[in-house]
Amino acid sequence: MNTFDFGIVGLGVMGRNLLLNIASQKFAAAGLDLDAEKVNSLQQEADAEHTLEATTDVKHFVELIKRPRAIMLLVPAGKPVDSAIQSLLPHLDEGDILIDGGNTYFTDTDRRFLELSAKGIHFFGMGISGGEKGARFGPSMMPGGDKKAYERLRPIFEAIAAKVDGEPCVEYLGNGSAGNYVKMVHNGIEYGIMQLISEIYDLMKRGYNLDEDTIQKTFEEWNESDLKSFLIEITAQILKKTEPDGSRLINQISDWAKSKGTGKWTSQNAMDLQVPVPTIDAAVFMRDMSKSKPERIEAATKLIWENAKTTVDTTEAIASLKSALYFSTLITYAQGLAMLKTASKEYNYDLNLETVTKIWRGGCIIRAEVLEDFRKAFAQNTDLPNILLDSNIAAKLNESQKGIRTIIQFAVQNGLPTAGLMNSLAYFDSYRSENLPTNLIQAQRDYFGAHTYERIDAPGIFHTQWND
Amino acid sequence: MNTFDFGIVGLGVMGRNLLLNIASQKFAAAGLDLDAEKVNSLQQEADAEHTLEATTDVKHFVELIKRPRAIMLLVPAGKPVDSAIQSLLPHLDEGDILIDGGNTYFTDTDRRFLELSAKGIHFFGMGISGGEKGARFGPSMMPGGDKKAYERLRPIFEAIAAKVDGEPCVEYLGNGSAGNYVKMVHNGIEYGIMQLISEIYDLMKRGYNLDEDTIQKTFEEWNESDLKSFLIEITAQILKKTEPDGSRLINQISDWAKSKGTGKWTSQNAMDLQVPVPTIDAAVFMRDMSKSKPERIEAATKLIWENAKTTVDTTEAIASLKSALYFSTLITYAQGLAMLKTASKEYNYDLNLETVTKIWRGGCIIRAEVLEDFRKAFAQNTDLPNILLDSNIAAKLNESQKGIRTIIQFAVQNGLPTAGLMNSLAYFDSYRSENLPTNLIQAQRDYFGAHTYERIDAPGIFHTQWND
Repeated sequence: MNTFDFGIVGLGVMGRNLLLNIASQKFAAAGLDLDAEKVNSLQQEADAEHTLEATTDVKHFVELIKRPRAIMLLVPAGKPVDSAIQSLLPHLDEGDILIDGGNTYFTDTDRRFLELSAKGIHFFGMGISGGEKGARFGPSMMPGGDKKAYERLRPIFEAIAAKVDGEPCVEYLGNGSAGNYVKMVHNGIEYGIMQLISEIYDLMKRGYNLDEDTIQKTFEEWNESDLKSFLIEITAQILKKTEPDGSRLINQISDWAKSKGTGKWTSQNAMDLQVPVPTIDAAVFMRDMSKSKPERIEAATKLIWENAKTTVDTTEAIASLKSALYFSTLITYAQGLAMLKTASKEYNYDLNLETVTKIWRGGCIIRAEVLEDFRKAFAQNTDLPNILLDSNIAAKLNESQKGIRTIIQFAVQNGLPTAGLMNSLAYFDSYRSENLPTNLIQAQRDYFGAHTYERIDAPGIFHTQWND
Repeated sequence: MNTFDFGIVGLGVMGRNLLLNIASQKFAAAGLDLDAEKVNSLQQEADAEHTLEATTDVKHFVELIKRPRAIMLLVPAGKPVDSAIQSLLPHLDEGDILIDGGNTYFTDTDRRFLELSAKGIHFFGMGISGGEKGARFGPSMMPGGDKKAYERLRPIFEAIAAKVDGEPCVEYLGNGSAGNYVKMVHNGIEYGIMQLISEIYDLMKRGYNLDEDTIQKTFEEWNESDLKSFLIEITAQILKKTEPDGSRLINQISDWAKSKGTGKWTSQNAMDLQVPVPTIDAAVFMRDMSKSKPERIEAATKLIWENAKTTVDTTEAIASLKSALYFSTLITYAQGLAMLKTASKEYNYDLNLETVTKIWRGGCIIRAEVLEDFRKAFAQNTDLPNILLDSNIAAKLNESQKGIRTIIQFAVQNGLPTAGLMNSLAYFDSYRSENLPTNLIQAQRDYFGAHTYERIDAPGIFHTQWND
């Protein structure tokens, strides 16, 4: 009794793999799940190298763990987290540490922090990214909240985290619900980049009529370029996968994209903060659009565009697609990072974006070569409001913008949707517009609602009788 | 005492004008506001033609009104509504009717309905659109909730409403918070169209270098075409307005666009309902973008696009701009109406979209010639999931799409932002795509998170070991 270093509640894909990761690092790990099958399956992994025990009994589970206890919840966000906390509470002692490692909405973490600290339990939220493999062999982890509690567990987390240049992809990020918040925005960026890759793939196929081999090899090659990243790497592997008859598996997969809500939360909260994240909005909207299959089938017969087919140079097209993807990926990170900047002020997280971009370089789903560029940008200027204002990033965007302009024009001519690419370019072109035509919107609001307006040549608030 | 037909709480722009409208229709109207100045100013409007009384005393105000009383709240959404209700409650009697005429978030209306019906007070939400002038001379009104209470007041509302072909622009819309909900989506569409007009104006100015007179006259002419609408009409008037020195006022107005939140609510709720409204999302994001003026000034010096200037035929350009605006406006309505369709099911509103489009034809900010096309489409097919599937609307879109494709290509070439136009086209081109590349997104999710996927050739749920 009371000999295990760490406990995990919830032995799904993430919980099981994280527990095995911890056990591989020579920490004794206990697991709890109500599903006996999951418990038995994990129990079979116990051996001389892995000190672990899994159980369906909450009392036994808690008793296994050393005091003050460290227990991580890896259950679906929302009510399951509250239920898990309620079932544990009667067995916990003051000073024990509870960690929420799931994709919890940040305001829930703030609420639970208050409820649990009233009971003497240290609680913090820690976003974990890396999927199945990452959890097993090295995720990126984003802890926030109770810093002392985190410090006590730091050796375990640093041992199991992904490493980049010897540095672990886990570091304390900030106050309150900072950990869950940063993970939410991470996922928003992930949504954006996945949408962009799918559009590029669509253009290769439906637009430029590249054959399947060329498409697959192109992603493989891109992963050896400045596009090098986890999502490009797995795209190349996915497109390679064949069916028993030798045809590509990708063509048999339904286009109805599911979502777990973190992308949506990012967009919704960005709107509350009044921070534009249009590429992420586009990713959310396109997943929603994917659900209307019966309508789309009917619409395809009614809404017709006769594209004037043009011949294009394949090598040039691939080069433009590459630039377009690179450009729009940078813009997506820019949106997410600018959102974190504003959120840090609004919610008093006290985030350091150099740290955030540093721990995103490895382990997580959005890990990519470009993260090091962002880390450098913030290292140079902590107060950078947007990475587009960093000279190095600006130069890369200025160079690569021709590609995205070519690609969007081609897609528009050919009737193919590119919501992610378009919104990335719209973000860039509006951000670099000293003057926007929103003066007209202010005038309209004053016209019909007497909402008043400001002038550029005088201070104060003005109202005009427009239709005199 | 107890002789007045109707009471209004909140004598701001909307409340004052609505009260004068009611009094002009020979109903005796009482007004309450804590601001003595507003009260005095309204009191001065009382004359032989207008039976009205304004006061700062809540008890006196309530006593003025006939029982069962009818009192409408026109105060800012949120806490002010709750405060107003709390101050009225001690003086009300069972059977009295309270109406929230403001831009209240619909879930607040549902909550207040429950709280007030427990006290025997009939409560319903009614969105009101038309701005200052509309409130005074005929708004469009969107009532929902307690139908019996609405029926009792119907004569007053029908008397003061805008009329189209003799029919009043007010009609009971549906259960619960339907009235506030429909108004919220109305405002979301309003945001979208305002953004589109501002982009077209920007392209005329920064893109095609049209002179101010031509721009102004173009909007004036468009208001005599199938674009005829309140927002085009006022744009033409705004662009005409000059300063004392003869220069145009529009050029002196700050481009920092304010918002009251209804557009944001529309986008956020659409995401909850999983209904795409990307043009409205773009309008929200561009208002947010307008706020980052200091960053944009810096970005304008760092993010540079050298546009290859091309000569264009002005007449052709104006024709394409007109098509683009027409096309994208239809798409914006389509998004909002599809959202209402889904919301009606989700929240049990039982909306009839023929009724909604009918009462939007006059009085409100988004009134336009095209509303009659939509009304006809729903009259023909109540279950139409999206107006893009109506043959008449589809034909208009098929015809006008060339314009928006030309305009977006021009804008992309010239480095000008067109988020609203782009998202409208992306909506169209994705909606008419029988197959979207979201199959790749499903494969990626299964790769990194074991989230499983569906196949097109077999039922069930599948998971693949992608990197074997």
